[in-house]
Amino acid sequence: MKASIIGPTGYTGRELVKILLKHPDIEDLYLFGRRQIYFHEEYPEFIGVFEKEIEKIDAKKIVDVSDIIFIALPHKISMEVTPMLRLQKNDVRIIDLSADYRLENSESYFKAYETEHKDPSFQGKYTYGLCEAKRNDIKKSRLIANPGCYPTSILLPLLPLLEKDCIEGTIIADSKSGASGAGKKLNHMLHFVENNENIVPYKIFKHQHTPEMMQFISSYGGSRDLIFTPHLLPVERGILSVLYIKIKESFKNEDIRNLFEKRFKSEIFVRVLGENDVPSLSRVKNTNFCDIGVFIDPEKEYIVIISAIDNLVKGAAGQAVQNMNIMFGINESKGLK
Amino acid sequence: MKASIIGPTGYTGRELVKILLKHPDIEDLYLFGRRQIYFHEEYPEFIGVFEKEIEKIDAKKIVDVSDIIFIALPHKISMEVTPMLRLQKNDVRIIDLSADYRLENSESYFKAYETEHKDPSFQGKYTYGLCEAKRNDIKKSRLIANPGCYPTSILLPLLPLLEKDCIEGTIIADSKSGASGAGKKLNHMLHFVENNENIVPYKIFKHQHTPEMMQFISSYGGSRDLIFTPHLLPVERGILSVLYIKIKESFKNEDIRNLFEKRFKSEIFVRVLGENDVPSLSRVKNTNFCDIGVFIDPEKEYIVIISAIDNLVKGAAGQAVQNMNIMFGINESKGLK
Amino acid sequence: MKASIIGPTGYTGRELVKILLKHPDIEDLYLFGRRQIYFHEEYPEFIGVFEKEIEKIDAKKIVDVSDIIFIALPHKISMEVTPMLRLQKNDVRIIDLSADYRLENSESYFKAYETEHKDPSFQGKYTYGLCEAKRNDIKKSRLIANPGCYPTSILLPLLPLLEKDCIEGTIIADSKSGASGAGKKLNHMLHFVENNENIVPYKIFKHQHTPEMMQFISSYGGSRDLIFTPHLLPVERGILSVLYIKIKESFKNEDIRNLFEKRFKSEIFVRVLGENDVPSLSRVKNTNFCDIGVFIDPEKEYIVIISAIDNLVKGAAGQAVQNMNIMFGINESKGLK
Amino acid sequence: MKASIIGPTGYTGRELVKILLKHPDIEDLYLFGRRQIYFHEEYPEFIGVFEKEIEKIDAKKIVDVSDIIFIALPHKISMEVTPMLRLQKNDVRIIDLSADYRLENSESYFKAYETEHKDPSFQGKYTYGLCEAKRNDIKKSRLIANPGCYPTSILLPLLPLLEKDCIEGTIIADSKSGASGAGKKLNHMLHFVENNENIVPYKIFKHQHTPEMMQFISSYGGSRDLIFTPHLLPVERGILSVLYIKIKESFKNEDIRNLFEKRFKSEIFVRVLGENDVPSLSRVKNTNFCDIGVFIDPEKEYIVIISAIDNLVKGAAGQAVQNMNIMFGINESKGLK
Repeated sequence: MKASIIGPTGYTGRELVKILLKHPDIEDLYLFGRRQIYFHEEYPEFIGVFEKEIEKIDAKKIVDVSDIIFIALPHKISMEVTPMLRLQKNDVRIIDLSADYRLENSESYFKAYETEHKDPSFQGKYTYGLCEAKRNDIKKSRLIANPGCYPTSILLPLLPLLEKDCIEGTIIADSKSGASGAGKKLNHMLHFVENNENIVPYKIFKHQHTPEMMQFISSYGGSRDLIFTPHLLPVERGILSVLYIKIKESFKNEDIRNLFEKRFKSEIFVRVLGENDVPSLSRVKNTNFCDIGVFIDPEKEYIVIISAIDNLVKGAAGQAVQNMNIMFGINESKGLK
Repeated sequence: MKASIIGPTGYTGRELVKILLKHPDIEDLYLFGRRQIYFHEEYPEFIGVFEKEIEKIDAKKIVDVSDIIFIALPHKISMEVTPMLRLQKNDVRIIDLSADYRLENSESYFKAYETEHKDPSFQGKYTYGLCEAKRNDIKKSRLIANPGCYPTSILLPLLPLLEKDCIEGTIIADSKSGASGAGKKLNHMLHFVENNENIVPYKIFKHQHTPEMMQFISSYGGSRDLIFTPHLLPVERGILSVLYIKIKESFKNEDIRNLFEKRFKSEIFVRVLGENDVPSLSRVKNTNFCDIGVFIDPEKEYIVIISAIDNLVKGAAGQAVQNMNIMFGINESKGLK
Repeated sequence: MKASIIGPTGYTGRELVKILLKHPDIEDLYLFGRRQIYFHEEYPEFIGVFEKEIEKIDAKKIVDVSDIIFIALPHKISMEVTPMLRLQKNDVRIIDLSADYRLENSESYFKAYETEHKDPSFQGKYTYGLCEAKRNDIKKSRLIANPGCYPTSILLPLLPLLEKDCIEGTIIADSKSGASGAGKKLNHMLHFVENNENIVPYKIFKHQHTPEMMQFISSYGGSRDLIFTPHLLPVERGILSVLYIKIKESFKNEDIRNLFEKRFKSEIFVRVLGENDVPSLSRVKNTNFCDIGVFIDPEKEYIVIISAIDNLVKGAAGQAVQNMNIMFGINESKGLK
Repeated sequence: MKASIIGPTGYTGRELVKILLKHPDIEDLYLFGRRQIYFHEEYPEFIGVFEKEIEKIDAKKIVDVSDIIFIALPHKISMEVTPMLRLQKNDVRIIDLSADYRLENSESYFKAYETEHKDPSFQGKYTYGLCEAKRNDIKKSRLIANPGCYPTSILLPLLPLLEKDCIEGTIIADSKSGASGAGKKLNHMLHFVENNENIVPYKIFKHQHTPEMMQFISSYGGSRDLIFTPHLLPVERGILSVLYIKIKESFKNEDIRNLFEKRFKSEIFVRVLGENDVPSLSRVKNTNFCDIGVFIDPEKEYIVIISAIDNLVKGAAGQAVQNMNIMFGINESKGLK
């Protein structure tokens, strides 16, 4: 299998390179970008390991050499590049790690990203690649919108509750993310002296990942709301999300743990932890796992669900490769264990 | 004024030393402890600054030399030492930074700390020293139980809502604390390699500060519950608490900001931040401030209140000195600005 | 005494504000800068503490309101602003924290900073404000060039050896600095993800502070050389310098400790540590101390001298205020303990 | 090939498990230790990945099931366990990651580790497994003493200079190590609050790795000395060593870069960086590389050589596996790229 990455110089792109280089079914890996440099010039840790040139984006060439194309461009850029790829070949296979094809309509895209969508006729045509929820759709898809990092950490632990319609009222998600989630672009909040020895909540009620989550949650019916508070942590990678959820009267808090264990029993990348065991970033670092802790007190109004992922792996590049494995019908964990 | 600190070798004790050394009304500062060493041997940053001997605890001497006694011993130890001080002098003035006199009855103490209280007849006789809530009681008190660090960060922002009885149902508090809050005692969770690049939630539904908070909340009537999720952060100091609160129907979300601004207008150590301004640890580090951010969306089921304090200052030693200032009728911010 | 700071928005400027606000002899503190904003807008931790406007630089006004002017502008900017101040008043008192007046001739300035000096007639007219070395000159000076942070950490421990002419051959200085030393300007090396969990040596043989150190070292005669290796650490503040020095045959390694103890005995801000005691950043953080460890093995070819300072205090703002105290004949440690 | 690890619960043991699990030639991996628990109980990140029981140490069984035995026990313990293995089988293959068989005589062991060696007749019978220096010896050995982490970072960049006999006088090595190098045992210096935001030099002139390095250096003849200053960094992993070396008059500083490039040209795990390129921890993290920077100024008395390794990989487990690959004649980089 031959793969291309468009936009490999961001942190997500680098992670994709790392994973795909070890993937036993990838025989060739091509890199394309907006600047023509060598990958190891941008990331000198790859000297002697992978000294590939990043070629200037050339839609024809990309499509010609690739069985699968990963787009790791920033949002707003992806939707400029992607149409050119489809023009070259109707049934091209794309896994887009940007946000550009996650939202199904232009209004919500405009609201979240403050830009007109430039390829609106393809909104809604991508499968939302949350593997554990959409496996069957992914198998049949050629176009995948890889979920955001925060949404992955929040929607995965919501799955058993959404599927059984257990949630009453508003979902509260208090999420803490490592700095790599904010990308490589310089920014005052990410200046070492500012982020170090600090934790900063931001974009309260306003984070651009909220519509993506609401769209997914609404697809299960009902009219639930979501309050999402992201925080920036002084660590490189990982997201820990704590969910506070009220269970409908028709369910008992005590039954929820069982629900989780059943739902994820056969999911290779979701680990429901034991009763007094707590997820944390260090346990999932550099892995494609989503760890979930289920905390139940029968006398409390809410249950507490805690998840941990590596934002660059399960929250980005790892899930993208998991999507590829599903699309191509190969072992879902290939290259990811 | 002459002050003594019993137990100055912990992180809270050290912070007290720092603050009291700069306090213009403290003419003498004595140190007492379980081990007889020099303070600068324990904390070499004090070489040339404060090279005082820590004397072995001697109740008579302590009471004789002190106008005010700060107890910075671990819980369970304070209640062994304190009765000896009172025996020496009936009306001794004590500010106890341990947890031993915060709870009003032995059952809740046993539940929280898994030990029989050894001085139960004095439980309930201490004023709970949350300065902004109990100022008038503190003025008249000789015995102060200084609040815990998490409770300070959570109860202060609850004050306006409790006083006006605005809260519907359960209060959710998602708190993140620096490692100094867990003390100086070696512990696997606090080993550098374990805490670094990590965030770990712990004691979900079970943290020993919960009864202290519930006792305070209940004192305002009603039967509200509290869900409290503490986390350990890879930073030295600071607590950030995010509160998710449902407002009673008789109030409007939009009015809550005004409530906070009014309530804290004349409080020198509580800063209600502007509308889009967000509390963070670095802003309150080494200060006695509690910063509060009020986030309101009229369409949401909950409001979001965020507080930040320095756990060792406003959450411990700073608040203790503020209590002293109030007790002695001197300017509340003396030595704390 | 009335003081002005020109350029208070950098990390050094902020530190100066902190120190001067607590200085008992400073009755008024004025801020001037290139942008007209409020200080607490730039540094919100000062809300409710110091909400002063930063006025646009106005040479006449600055000179009129100030007994002493601190310049905390970046190098290259200071030498544009300073001549205007002197034009207003011949005998204005200035403490310049930039690098612009540390070097005595234009060639070495050009070599170090790759710019023509714009005020060359005043190079050499400033006293190099390394307080412990130049106290008598400082007393008589109106123009002080405050030393760089690395030079302070390296030249102070060299003092006893330079004064007694003990050093044979090249001095080796291996220095490690916190990120605040590199300033507030965004920069890839200081992006959190890059600096975190890392240590990076830089500008080997080429750091711009080398000529400043060589000028000072040469002033003691002889033709010693210096090899200086700076590193960037994943901490906010502090510099640790390790010096490897060969002692001339006319001296014995064993006598060096005594030399240090004697030389610094009466220096309030230099602490020569005991024999097995080692300097570290945390001990000097937020203080004006320079801690020095002297390590001698009679059988070794070199002695090892280790120093630690807080780069923003003794390495910048603290030393600047110490200089002011000396200039004005007040207690040298006023406002600094 | 079947491998056993004795002592897998330390940080080095965990790293060995990670590497051996991915090694294509290892078909079975057995764990033995002093406590009988499951590996994933000690390291919960291995839940669902490697849930193997650690069996109680049983010399007969270990020897029976293993083609190769890795000893990751602390020093002083290894020399108690190892003789039992040899008793079972004369020609057992052992790679010992502890310090117990690195020193060739009992006196230097006693001096470094303050204990009598318990298996002195086998001191000197182990090959010192610095792969790039001892490849031919390793091929023929059954007993390997895996080098210490600091020695690996210092001796590798010394190799070209030792082999060509270029070094004049004393070698100066200023090394900075991440906290994992100090192990998992609780220790005040490694308590988060103490190590965070700090850098601490320690054991100046006295570190136990010095005799190991001196033994290796002396084996090249001459009577060079070494001054070694280790520091503890607030990062998890990595060692950066800066070497200051005087070159003999018969060589020119300018020729040294060439010497390094030639010497390491065919070494897969040593990367000599380009002229202005500087080693750093993040580039070698989680890899078996040793990056080397060569800094030459023809006018300086010393050259500066900088190396960076991951202390747990090239400085421990990775080098151990590289040793195994060499012993068994398989591709030296197998399982390590």
